[in-house]
Amino acid sequence: MKPISDKVIGRLARYRTLLTEQVPEGRTHLFSYEIAAAMRLADSQVRRDLMAVGTRGVPQHGYEIEALKARLDDALALDRAHGVAVVGAGDLGRALIAFLEARRTTLAIRAAFDVDPAKVNRVFSGVKCHAMADLEKVVAAEGITLAILCVPAAAAQPAADALVHAGIRGVLNFAPVALRLPVQVALEELVITTYLEKLAYFTTHPAKERRNGRHDAR
Amino acid sequence: MKPISDKVIGRLARYRTLLTEQVPEGRTHLFSYEIAAAMRLADSQVRRDLMAVGTRGVPQHGYEIEALKARLDDALALDRAHGVAVVGAGDLGRALIAFLEARRTTLAIRAAFDVDPAKVNRVFSGVKCHAMADLEKVVAAEGITLAILCVPAAAAQPAADALVHAGIRGVLNFAPVALRLPVQVALEELVITTYLEKLAYFTTHPAKERRNGRHDAR
Repeated sequence: MKPISDKVIGRLARYRTLLTEQVPEGRTHLFSYEIAAAMRLADSQVRRDLMAVGTRGVPQHGYEIEALKARLDDALALDRAHGVAVVGAGDLGRALIAFLEARRTTLAIRAAFDVDPAKVNRVFSGVKCHAMADLEKVVAAEGITLAILCVPAAAAQPAADALVHAGIRGVLNFAPVALRLPVQVALEELVITTYLEKLAYFTTHPAKERRNGRHDAR
Repeated sequence: MKPISDKVIGRLARYRTLLTEQVPEGRTHLFSYEIAAAMRLADSQVRRDLMAVGTRGVPQHGYEIEALKARLDDALALDRAHGVAVVGAGDLGRALIAFLEARRTTLAIRAAFDVDPAKVNRVFSGVKCHAMADLEKVVAAEGITLAILCVPAAAAQPAADALVHAGIRGVLNFAPVALRLPVQVALEELVITTYLEKLAYFTTHPAKERRNGRHDAR
């Protein structure tokens, strides 16, 4: 399969979420225009994206939901398990563990890490918390490839460096810091205050002044 | 001032985060190329964005940090207070309240809401939790314009409808659901599993196959 761009991958992940969470009861097929309407995308964009992963709808019925989900799982490499670490077991880190553990996906939280000795060796929502000093050992032993970073701003870059050193290949960063990572390590930044500040702007400006406030990029 | 596009606003919010969280000690000025390097953007992009809010660096010193922050606050409407509600006071909602309350920005969490009678009237990190039935009344009384939605998937659209009805103007959505909102209500979606799934893809594909995994759009 041809390499797929970052933007397309982001949309494929969103289609998958839609098919997993929001299919109307009793439906086995969906039309591209229904997916497009839910995502606020153009119908042609949806069809083009799904064609990039080798699927086509049929005119009378659209896309078969289960087959499309399986195809998206395959394209997104979600047909196999991925080990995930949560680094920083504060309020946010522990909440994310609970949230993700409740969802039971192929993205499995295999370990948490914290510098606080009071948290080390505790178990949060079924996930054991380790000392940061044991990062490399635990990442290797548990086959962890992804990390969710929920440490305070000042600790974020050193923690990210340690993750890279331990062989992590993707980081989801919640710390309000622009991380420097080698280009072969994938990075997504979810700095909540940045999103809120962006929303605040749009609440003070009339709708006609703004373009769609949604991320077409994902 | 001319209307600013969604993408530029997203970047301005990120510049502001950088200037707030990551200025090297002892510096009073930053060059555009330093901001650009931290954000993985082109230098020319940074200069163009900052010119859009009426600021220019000076050749020998770059941008004066405090003046630039003040200008960004003004442009992003962060020079005034915004009332924020957290809807859904489960693990994630309560963690977000604690996280945001610790930061003391002009984005102030004024109320939480939940359907669970066991949570109503409790106080989480200094924020009182109200019944969903009182949403409209509390939103009006507290001058709330923004909402963070952390309810389960099935509850997300009804909660969003209630928020719109109560006059909320921007929604930060953590529920794994593509919300239908009127176009005049701003929406940012932070569906964590979608981001993780996107990262998972990039961990299984060599770096040369992918474009930058960061959101240029913000």
